[in-house]
Amino acid sequence: MYRLTVLYNQPTDPAAFDEYYTSTHMPLAAKLPGLRSVAVSKGDTLDGSTPDVYQVAELYFDSKQELMASLSSDEGRAVSADVANFATGGASMVFTDVTELPL
Amino acid sequence: MYRLTVLYNQPTDPAAFDEYYTSTHMPLAAKLPGLRSVAVSKGDTLDGSTPDVYQVAELYFDSKQELMASLSSDEGRAVSADVANFATGGASMVFTDVTELPL
Repeated sequence: MYRLTVLYNQPTDPAAFDEYYTSTHMPLAAKLPGLRSVAVSKGDTLDGSTPDVYQVAELYFDSKQELMASLSSDEGRAVSADVANFATGGASMVFTDVTELPL
Repeated sequence: MYRLTVLYNQPTDPAAFDEYYTSTHMPLAAKLPGLRSVAVSKGDTLDGSTPDVYQVAELYFDSKQELMASLSSDEGRAVSADVANFATGGASMVFTDVTELPL
């Protein structure tokens, strides 16, 4: 599987971020061609302080080719353009070809 | 599941990083109490440029409590102390309570 991880930094208004993410951004992302699964989780800290990373979204595709085709589609461009509408703390993307290693 | 993600920035010598990671760091990490699974993957870019994030390691535990106990154990302290021995580009940690969202 090929994965796009989006790391959202702490936004200025977390409640507004959550509302927009759920009502608008997730439905847009769900339309991405070739998207196989999504995992969304909140950043955390061990000492109770505010985490730098507020939210992590992981989007899985069958291959890098599938992901590239998806991001360059109309749906992909709409999702990318939407990030600026709510990611007030900024966001960074990490691309990985996921390999699970047994212990 | 509770996850610790370690994002390793591009090291000064990737080959040396890989050698040390496989021969020394992974065996130390495999001894972490309560560690349920590990996924290690290389960072990538879509345009062929050098990625900022060289490698991503994901360590899964049953709960935040299990992870905290693991990191504060002798084995956990040894793993944490070892990072400085090879992560020449630096590393950042992200903690997340993983929630899988269906499409």
